[in-house]
Parts: sequence; C-alpha cells; structure tokens
Amino acid sequence: MMNLLLNNMVKNKMPHWARRKKIYLSGFLTLATVVVLFGSCSKSISIEGHESYPKLILKKQDVPQIVEGISKYPLLKASFEKAKSIADNAILNGIEIPIPKDPGGGYTHEKHKRNYIEMYNAGLVYQLTGEEKYAVFVRDMLLKYAELYPTLGLHPMKKNQAPGKLFWQGLNESVWLVYTIQAYDCIHDFLTDTERKIIEENLFKEVVKFFLTENKSTFNRIHNHGTWAVAGVGMTGLVLGDTLMVKQALYSTELDSTGGFLRQIDELFSPDGYYAEGPYYQRYALLPFVIFAKALENNIPELKIFDYKSGVLNRAVVTLLQLTNTDGRFYPINDAIKDKTWITPELVFGTNIAYFNTHDSTILDVAQKQGEVMLSIEGLEVAKAIEQGHVKTFVRKPIVIRDGKNGDAGGLAILRMGKNEKQTSVLFKFTSQGMGHGHFDRLNLNIFDRGVEIVPDYGAARFINVVAKEGGRYLNENKTWAKQTIAHNTLVINQKSNFNGSVKLADKFSPKLLFTDLSNANIQMVSAIDENCYKNDTIQRTLALIEFGDRKFLIDLFNIKGIGRVQYDLPTYFNGQIIDSNFEIQRLNQYKILGNNNGYQHLVIDAESRAFDSLARVTWAIGTGFYSLTTITNTHTNFYVVRLGANDPNYNLRNQQGFIFRGELAGSGKILSVYELHGNYNPSTEAVLGSESAIDSCKLFDDNDRVAVYVTLKNGKKIGLFIDLSFSGSNSNRVKVDNSVVTWQGNYKLTIKE
Amino acid sequence: MMNLLLNNMVKNKMPHWARRKKIYLSGFLTLATVVVLFGSCSKSISIEGHESYPKLILKKQDVPQIVEGISKYPLLKASFEKAKSIADNAILNGIEIPIPKDPGGGYTHEKHKRNYIEMYNAGLVYQLTGEEKYAVFVRDMLLKYAELYPTLGLHPMKKNQAPGKLFWQGLNESVWLVYTIQAYDCIHDFLTDTERKIIEENLFKEVVKFFLTENKSTFNRIHNHGTWAVAGVGMTGLVLGDTLMVKQALYSTELDSTGGFLRQIDELFSPDGYYAEGPYYQRYALLPFVIFAKALENNIPELKIFDYKSGVLNRAVVTLLQLTNTDGRFYPINDAIKDKTWITPELVFGTNIAYFNTHDSTILDVAQKQGEVMLSIEGLEVAKAIEQGHVKTFVRKPIVIRDGKNGDAGGLAILRMGKNEKQTSVLFKFTSQGMGHGHFDRLNLNIFDRGVEIVPDYGAARFINVVAKEGGRYLNENKTWAKQTIAHNTLVINQKSNFNGSVKLADKFSPKLLFTDLSNANIQMVSAIDENCYKNDTIQRTLALIEFGDRKFLIDLFNIKGIGRVQYDLPTYFNGQIIDSNFEIQRLNQYKILGNNNGYQHLVIDAESRAFDSLARVTWAIGTGFYSLTTITNTHTNFYVVRLGANDPNYNLRNQQGFIFRGELAGSGKILSVYELHGNYNPSTEAVLGSESAIDSCKLFDDNDRVAVYVTLKNGKKIGLFIDLSFSGSNSNRVKVDNSVVTWQGNYKLTIKE
Repeated sequence: MMNLLLNNMVKNKMPHWARRKKIYLSGFLTLATVVVLFGSCSKSISIEGHESYPKLILKKQDVPQIVEGISKYPLLKASFEKAKSIADNAILNGIEIPIPKDPGGGYTHEKHKRNYIEMYNAGLVYQLTGEEKYAVFVRDMLLKYAELYPTLGLHPMKKNQAPGKLFWQGLNESVWLVYTIQAYDCIHDFLTDTERKIIEENLFKEVVKFFLTENKSTFNRIHNHGTWAVAGVGMTGLVLGDTLMVKQALYSTELDSTGGFLRQIDELFSPDGYYAEGPYYQRYALLPFVIFAKALENNIPELKIFDYKSGVLNRAVVTLLQLTNTDGRFYPINDAIKDKTWITPELVFGTNIAYFNTHDSTILDVAQKQGEVMLSIEGLEVAKAIEQGHVKTFVRKPIVIRDGKNGDAGGLAILRMGKNEKQTSVLFKFTSQGMGHGHFDRLNLNIFDRGVEIVPDYGAARFINVVAKEGGRYLNENKTWAKQTIAHNTLVINQKSNFNGSVKLADKFSPKLLFTDLSNANIQMVSAIDENCYKNDTIQRTLALIEFGDRKFLIDLFNIKGIGRVQYDLPTYFNGQIIDSNFEIQRLNQYKILGNNNGYQHLVIDAESRAFDSLARVTWAIGTGFYSLTTITNTHTNFYVVRLGANDPNYNLRNQQGFIFRGELAGSGKILSVYELHGNYNPSTEAVLGSESAIDSCKLFDDNDRVAVYVTLKNGKKIGLFIDLSFSGSNSNRVKVDNSVVTWQGNYKLTIKE
Repeated sequence: MMNLLLNNMVKNKMPHWARRKKIYLSGFLTLATVVVLFGSCSKSISIEGHESYPKLILKKQDVPQIVEGISKYPLLKASFEKAKSIADNAILNGIEIPIPKDPGGGYTHEKHKRNYIEMYNAGLVYQLTGEEKYAVFVRDMLLKYAELYPTLGLHPMKKNQAPGKLFWQGLNESVWLVYTIQAYDCIHDFLTDTERKIIEENLFKEVVKFFLTENKSTFNRIHNHGTWAVAGVGMTGLVLGDTLMVKQALYSTELDSTGGFLRQIDELFSPDGYYAEGPYYQRYALLPFVIFAKALENNIPELKIFDYKSGVLNRAVVTLLQLTNTDGRFYPINDAIKDKTWITPELVFGTNIAYFNTHDSTILDVAQKQGEVMLSIEGLEVAKAIEQGHVKTFVRKPIVIRDGKNGDAGGLAILRMGKNEKQTSVLFKFTSQGMGHGHFDRLNLNIFDRGVEIVPDYGAARFINVVAKEGGRYLNENKTWAKQTIAHNTLVINQKSNFNGSVKLADKFSPKLLFTDLSNANIQMVSAIDENCYKNDTIQRTLALIEFGDRKFLIDLFNIKGIGRVQYDLPTYFNGQIIDSNFEIQRLNQYKILGNNNGYQHLVIDAESRAFDSLARVTWAIGTGFYSLTTITNTHTNFYVVRLGANDPNYNLRNQQGFIFRGELAGSGKILSVYELHGNYNPSTEAVLGSESAIDSCKLFDDNDRVAVYVTLKNGKKIGLFIDLSFSGSNSNRVKVDNSVVTWQGNYKLTIKE
C-alpha cells in the first residue's frame, strides 16, 4: 500500500511536504496486514486481519473501557444517554422507509435523515449495552433499505446536478452512507451471513455503485461534496473489506489521483488548515475528512493519515475554531448560514479526534461547551480529560491564516483586541475565490464587537431546509446579490463586481498579503493587495486597529493604482440604528434604485447627501456599543444610505442597511476611512457613556507609497500613523506634512500626542 | 400619627379596603415613640427615640449580623464586594462636583448620577467595615454639594416641565435625594454637629424646599415622578427628624391627601398590584414605593405600610415579575425601553423587600438571577435563604391582572402555554390609558414565543440617555408614532386613533373584561370590550389560545357593533422574514405612504394586494419558529406590507415591518384571524420541521352573539370553537352552520374532529 502511495505520488508529482519529510517511507516494512498489489490499473489494497467488528470508528476492543467511562465521566454519560434516548424513541416509533418524494425540509427528506441518525445511535448503543433490540432495529431497517434501494431511480425532485436516489441531492445520500455504514459496522457481528450478504449486495454495493457511476463526477470532484462521497465509499470499503473501494476513495475512480481523498486534502486545505470554501463549509466538510481519516487510522495505520501534509487535518480543526466570533458563530464569509456556531454535532467529531491526536487542552474548552462527545475512545479521552480538570480556555488570538494549497493564495487576517465576550475582531478577507461557494469580495472587511456583528457580511441568500423557500436551496438572490461585490464591505469600481462576476477567472487569481504585524498591544496592522480583480486597477487595502484610551480606532486605507477615470463605491453595511451624523442626511420620498445589475438592482436608496466638506461622519448604535465611521470626503463625494429589498418579489432578501460613499478617481488615489468603536450602554442601569464620536479631524498626507495619517480628537490628543505602503523596510521614509517633513524608519510608526 | 391617618381618611373618604379591614386601628395604643398632634393644618408627626443611625433602610442594630452574613452567604458577599469596589474606585478617583451643564447622557448629568451611587455605596461600606475613609468620602462630597447647591438656579438645559437644579429633570434630582439621604443616614453619627448642620441646612433642606415650592406640582402629582419626590422628601424627613416633611410626603404639601404617598398607593396600583403606567414604569416606580415604605416600616412601624391596601406593595412586586417574557424582559406596552429585564438594580430592592415580607420563595429564583442583594437585613435574608436552598422556580402563569384603583378599569390577560424558555405568551391589553405614558392601544395583542417577540409592541420612541437623540428624552415620534393606535396590533377605525388621540378623554374610560377562562390545558380564552375608544363603535375582541398536536392556534375574533359604514385597518407587526403566502404579494416600486396623520404618515407601503378569495395567509420565520396568520377575507379586502420610516428625517424610528388587513364594515361585523405557531428550526443540526401552515380553511358562522369558528387542517382534522359572545351563561346556544344547526351549552365549547 505504501508502495502504491509512493507510486501514485511519483506519477502525479509528489507534493513538497511529502518530498521534504519522506513521511511515507517510514514504516514501509511493517505492513503485515496490508497486501499491496502493483500496477497502475489493478492496484488494490487488501484489508485483512480485522476480523473483529466494529472497527471503523468505535472499535471492539475499546468497548469495555468506554462502558466503564460512562459511569465515571458525566459528559460521556450524557452523550450515551442522548444516543440511547434517540435509539429508544426510534424503536418506539417503529421503522418507516418512505418512498423518496419531497425536497429538502419535506417529510420524506427529513425522515430519511432521521433514519440514518437513528440507525447510527442504535448501532452504538447496541455495542455499549449489548442489548439485542438495538441491533434488531438497525438490522430490520437496513433490510428494508436493501429492499427499497435497488428499486429506486433518481429522486423525483432532483435538480440540475448530482441528484441522489433517497434524497434530491447526492450530497445527502453521501451523508446517509457515512452514518449508515457505521451503524452496519456496529451490528456486523450480530447478523447472519445471509443478512450480511443481502445488506452488502443490495444496499451498500448499490449505493457505492451509484456514486462510482452515475455520480462519478461528484465523487472525483475536489470539493466538499466529493469528500462526503469518498468518505462514505471508503468507509464502506473498509467495512466490506473491499480494497478497490478504498483505493478509489483515496485515489479517484480511475485510481489516477486526479481526485480522491488525498488529493482533496492536498488541494482543499492550506498549510494553515484553512479550507478553501470558508468556515461555514469547513465546519461541514471537516466531518467526512476527520471521520474517514479516523477510519483509515484505525484500519490502515501505516498510512499515517493524520501526519499527511504535515498534520493539516488536526490543524484544520483548531483553525476553524479560531474562525469564530466570541459567541462561537463562524465568520459568515462566502456562502454561509449566519447562525451556525461551533456547538454543532458535526464539529464534535472534529474536536474529539483533534484532541485525541494532539492533546491540545484548549480544544477541551470547546468540547465542554459542545456538551457531547463521540461514543468512542476519542470521546472517552475528552470526557475524562474534562472531568480531570485539564480544560484550558480557548483564546481567540490575532492571527493570519494563509489560503491556497501551498499557502500562497492570499488568506485571512483577524485583528483582535480585548478579552472574552467583549473582544473586538476585525476580519480582513484576501483569500482565493473559494470555488462555487466563494463571493466576489476581494479585500473585504467585517467588524465584530462585544459579541455583535457591527459591520456584517450578508452570508448566503438561502433559508436552509425551509420548504417554501425553494426547498431550502440557494436562492437566485444568492447569485444576484449575496455573491456580488457591492454586497460586501469593499471597493467596487465602476459598479462592476470583481472579475466581472466570473468564477472561472476569479479562481485563477488571489490577492497577496504584503505586510502584517499583530504583535503589539496597542496596534495591529495588515496590508494586502489585489492586482487582478479589476482589469485596470490595482487595489491595496491597509488596516490598522489601534487602541487608545477607552476607544478603538480602525484606520482603513485604500491605495488604488489605475489608469483612467473611475467611479468607486465603498459600502459599509451596518446593523443597528443611525444615531447621528455631522452632515444632513436627506431621506428620499421617492423610490430610487441604486443601479441595474451586479447586485445594485437590489439596493433601494433610502437617503443621500452630496457636496461634502473635508470630513463626513456617521454614528450608529447596536447592542451596548456606539460606532462611528469618519471618511475624508470632497465636494464630489456622494453618500447614500441604502437598504436591501428592490427587485426581490418574494422577500428572499433579509433587511439590511448600509452606507455607501461614492467618489471618483483620476487614475490613482487613496481613500481613508476611520472606524471608531466607542461608548457603552448599560441596559440594566440605562447609563450611557461616550455615545459621541471623539474625532475632531482626520488628515491624510502622502508621497506615493509613503503616507501620514492624523486623527485629531476633540480633547486635543492626536494619533499619527506613518506607513510605507510598499513595505520595503526602508529606514528613510519621508512625507511632507503641511510645511514640514515627517520622517520615520521601517514599515510603519505610530505616534500619540497627548 | 394613626389618629392623624384616620382623621385624614375620614376627611377624604376612607377607601373600601381600609373600611373593611380597619387595619389602621390595630396597634393604635402602642405609639410610644410617635407623638401625634391634631388639627388639619398643623398636623405633624414627631419621630423621636430613634437616636441610633443608620435607621432608614440599613439599621444600626442589623450591622453585626450582616457583617457575619457576608462571610457566610456568597450573594451577600458579592454584593458587599461590588459596593466596596464602587466605593474604593470613587475614593481613588477623588471628588468632583461639576457645575450642572449637560442634558441626559452628557458629562455633568452622568457625573452627578455617579456621585450619588458612590456616596450611597461608600455609606454602606462605612457601616459594614467601620473604615473611616468611606465616611470621610461621603462627608466631603456632601459638604461640597452643600456649598454648591444653594448657589444653583434651574438647570440650564431645563425643558418645559419640572426641571431640576443638578439635573435637567427634577425627576433625576429626586432619585439623587433618595440615594443621597441614605448615604447621609449611614455617616450621620460620624459627623460633627457643625457638619451635620451645614449639610442638613444648606443641602437637604434646600433640596426639599425646592421640591415643596418650585417643584410642588410634581411633588403632589399622582405619578411616578411624584413618588420619587415624596420618597426623597419623606426619607429626608425621617433622617432629619422633621415630622412636617414626613407628613407632607404622606399627605401632600397641603396635608390634605390630594396627593402624597398614600394617595399614590391608592390610585396608582390596582388591587392586583398593577401599576397604571405599565410594567416598564412599574419597575422604575417600584423602587421609591418599596424603599420609602421600608423606611416607614423601620421608623413608624405602626403605620403598617406593607399592609396598606391589603398588602398591595408586596403584590406589586410579584405582579411585575409576572409581566415579563421568558427572557426576563418586561412586556414593552406603553412607553417602554424594550431591552429592560428584571435583572435591574432598582428591582433588587423590590424582590428583597417583598421576600422579606412574604417569604414567597419563588421570588428567590429572581433574586438569584439578579446576582446581588441589598446590604441590609432584607438582603441578608435573601442571600441566606438562597444559600440554604429555599429557591423555588418562578413560574410564569396564565393570568388576568386587573387595572384601576378598585380593579374595575380593565386589565391585562396573559395566555400562556408551554414551559420555561419555550413558553408561548399572548398578551392582551385592555387596561386603562395609563396616563401620559399610556398608548392609544385599546384591545392590543402581542405574541411572544420561545423567548422571541413574534408580534411585537413598538415600545417608546426614545434612545435613553443618548446625547445625539435629544439627550435621551422622548422623541417627537413617540407622540406621532409610538402612541398612535396604528402603531399597535389592534383595530383602527377610519384611520383615527382611539379617542382621537386625546389623553384627557382616554383617561376617563376603560375597556371591560367580559370573560376569561385560563384553567384548561388545551384552551385559554379571554374576551374584553371597549365601548368608548371610537365614538360610534363598540369593539369586542375575543382571543382563544388552543394547543393541538405540536402546534398552537390563536383564534382572534373582533366583534364590532356600530353605525354607518366604516373602514378598518387591522395591523400585525412582525419580527423576522416573510417566508410564504397563499396569494401574490406585490412589492411596490414606487414610494407610497399609507396616510397623512395619526401615525399613518410614518408607514411606507412596501407591498400590497387586493381582491382576495375567502382566505389570506402569510407565513414568517424568526428564531427557531414559523408563524402564520390566516384571515378571512373578501373581494374588498386590501392587504399591505408596511415598514416604518416615512417622515422620519432623523432616523428616530427603528425598522419595523407589519401586515395590515384593510376592510370595510357596514354598521356591525366580525373579523376573524387565526395565528398559528408552528415548526422548528434547529440551527445546530439545520433540521427544519413544520415550516408550512397546516390550515386548509377557516370558516365563521354567526347569529349575532353566537359564533362558530371552524379551522380545518390539511390532514383533515378540524377544530371547532363555539362562543356565546355575550357570555350570558345560556345553556341553549345555537348557530346555523351551512344547512344544519349547532347547539352548545355555556359560554364556549371546543371540539376537535380527528
């Protein structure tokens, strides 16, 4: 098998981390239980010597100590009791395998989902109690599925791509398989040979065949749908002892490594453990990655799958945990349902397996909050460690997370200040496109403060599993609004989206990280550049989060280099209530839409203002905080308050308000905004402090790449930030400021004049 | 004193509960320490024999056991430590008494507020630690106030009515006095005679004089501002031994009982403990009521103030606790800030004192959540009882709460089903107007479910203590929008508000409760009528909350009897997202306002539909639930989706969406709506169940006051509700239903056809 792996790798070019570490050579001669056959078309893995079932995730030999642990560790006990209650209820309600009929959210859809959850839990409970009724339940349900499945054609509600038979989407069918094969693994030894034969031939092999033939393109796809499919098929192969299945899961249907599990790990995770589609999908895709990896570790340990790509699967779990706001919600970049938190069943596998592998005790903090553990050796270890007091607080840190299989395709920076639930996070997105679920939001900004989304991302236009909203699928507005550049807090040039909205083009280019320094207590800085998202313009965005007094200031500087005259729009979506402004906001009493396409057709102009002096400032309030946005303006600046809802006949879009500053650039130019996070409202005492902006003036002086930013406060204090935007490391940077010259050494300098 | 009380009562007509129970006669001969002088103009109370200070709330003799309790009871300890930390910080920061300058939310306003909190805490900590530095701090601050106060004129930011000197509103000045006199009481014995003289003469007597002369009308007002004023003055009288002050606090400046504390208790609380202005103000007003009552109990126990009006003050606390949603938020009827919960410092006094008086251990549940207790014998008792495990869960029950001093001015009904945080509450408001903070919302309906406001009340148009929003005062939109009938979920006739918006008129009339039965598990019913809010029309609203299967249905039937043809609007404001409808909702692409005045000028028409068949149904989603509103319609029905925001140049109004059904009535008629609470969205697993309405049809058959309502579900099951709207108790009610006749006995009958 190892040979085969090498063989494959050489053939498809071995990735650099494999070359460097030669990790696949170690243990080569220990493969007593794995018979490797050679030859590129007939390669196979034979899994022998695993005669005891279950062996996939929960292992036969671990059962006694898990049973003992249930009586000792509350979290394990609660998890067992939850599983038992699901299984008991399932037995009580009896078995129903409806003919597939409904789309997502509909009865048959939800019933088949419940069925695999029930089988999965009943299987585990059978192992942990030895009570036959649980095995009988799983057996009977599997036999019924074995009767039904071969009779099914494609699902009647199937849509364009990759349909299932039990479900309208093949994706659901893969998930079904991942859980169901585990249930089968648990009752394998309870069954007669005949029963096993019926179930394996008429059900599992049929399902696998469906994936390998009719759903082949999904199976071979480098994508989370592909991962679910290979996990299901690969785990089935391990249980059925079918080496070809396992190989196909690892190396694609053609065994040529153009797809398959290893290629997916290679391509979909960056070395920092970032998953290309973003955190919402990382959470979802992580389950088949870790569960299939665990099954491989248990059955082909020589593969050392958790060391693959320098241990990226473990890192992916911790990275994902970092990609949450203080309330545990995943940052909703790209297509994302916004209320998803790390308290989600699929992530229990991630935290448990990663803790088991790494013994990083900050993971226990999250596992404890999740309130349940796997019923396996991993869950036992977690529950035990928690009970023994090994939990360390999981701390959200300022962090840069690289994107791209080699870590060179942009990334995310999270500037963070403050502790616990009062923490401020500034999320700066300069990732790659993230495939079909990616948004055209190069250099996008989101701000979170005190647990609340202050400057939000819209997420996805989708009401998951809600029948009336197209069965919970992505709505058309996901394309016409949510993915468009204007739907994000980043620059739009000439009212067009990045790459003119072409995913194909966007997938080819990534922004570049230019500079980052997150090591100081009172200032954190990041700068990134995108040279491709607009044809004629290079856009650099530099963010500096500065803590000063009891306020935080986020300096936000765009540096645009281009040819020709362009119009730009810089939106800031906000949650909360407009409180104040230093100019008159004229609300319209006519219905005006901001534009005709690229998302603009969904924005109603609620208010506008023109002809500014040098500074525009708006203040809004949400939760317990107050927030001000101060922008340097000129007489050509236009300002809009917009709200979502135009060209949305079915109320598919949520209410969302935003500010847009519109200006013009002749070739190149800079745009300076300052976000100010201030004040406090105490709803219990009704006391309010600092509800007004403290900024008196903002000024920008520049000499090409050298800039000086001054923020003068009403109390006379003055913040000065000096940046070499080329980040050349030069020690003689200078900018003319009024009639004098300011010089500094290094990439940036912060001064505070009290 | 008792004599005086009797004397007063006879003169001003003794209320019935006093007459009935003669509670004021008991203990008459035990008034050893109270010298009573007779004569209606020279009546006075002399408080002697109370030589030990403090004596107001925290009593000298209780200090040792409280100190001991701090070491034993965590809640008391935490409260002491909080007080100490406030006092320590205050001492560290030094004393500043700024010249009054700013309005609410501004620096001097907030500073003077902090000052009294600091003195109050330092005074208590002095008593509990004996450390002189705390007394010194209070003394020095009081001396500075004594220097400043006599020099002050009215506050420079004063508004029309009842200004203060330290604060722009006299109200804040009263609150200042309530806390500051307690601080003085705590350090009384630490001061020299000279210091006492300076502080009493130059500060307290000056403040009291200000209330009794320049702010006399507020002082004598039957209103929460009056309560704060009499509490401050009365407590000052008790500490200074000034009997006239105490008498004036009890019986008004003229001692004629046209105002004063007792009259306030008489008039402002219903026998059920409902405070006329509504829960938000009940929370606020309760503090001076219970704290002054406690001071009276401690110093003139013979007054038996907590027995007054059959013990209404204790009842008011429990009633207020019932007036919260499952998350502890007060129902935001009338003028109310919506995020106020029972975790609020002022209510700590209420729960602690009520528990001390009644030993109702469900109050401990709330006190425990409040996380702090009074530093007094009351707080000690609460902390001790909690530590000893006496807490009983506070259960929100279905309840009718009568309004009006004699309980005959309408009231509130809360229909409740379900447990804990998943409880459904339907709030039906048929109270009296509630004075200046009341809204024109006769027969208003609000729905709460699973912790969320489903059909909300707007509350007040006010951003409390936010400088930019007119210093946090009530905004003009409170009058033009929030108080208007169209701003509520109740019937509007001919686009006019109840009583044409006249408070004077509205204060004269109340709706009447006709029937209530909250005793059944699967149906709760209430019916009330208003005969005055519209000149030519009598409006009856009947609500029945029915649990059936895993859904709840709220039958909502208006019965209107009038003369002439009228147009009506029936709004349902909703939070969340429109999901579905059984008719085409046409969103407008033009700017149209619903009307010109009475609140209509603030509503933009977002969508409309006309010409209905027999049934209109809309579904929306919020939180984890789905909600449908089904209404019987006809070809003349108009439907609007409206949103707030027209004629609101300063964004003073929050975003709020609503549905409005508009119809016509020729004389009399009935309007039937059915709210359906259904479905579940599990954000953790993303599973959705029951997102669609189950209603197939609704039908109404009536014969004047006898009605039959049928709700037929898609699964064929049928709910029948038969009501005698005259609630005559007749045993032979009949209604013709299609070609047959249905009969029933009694006021109503529920049938379920499976």
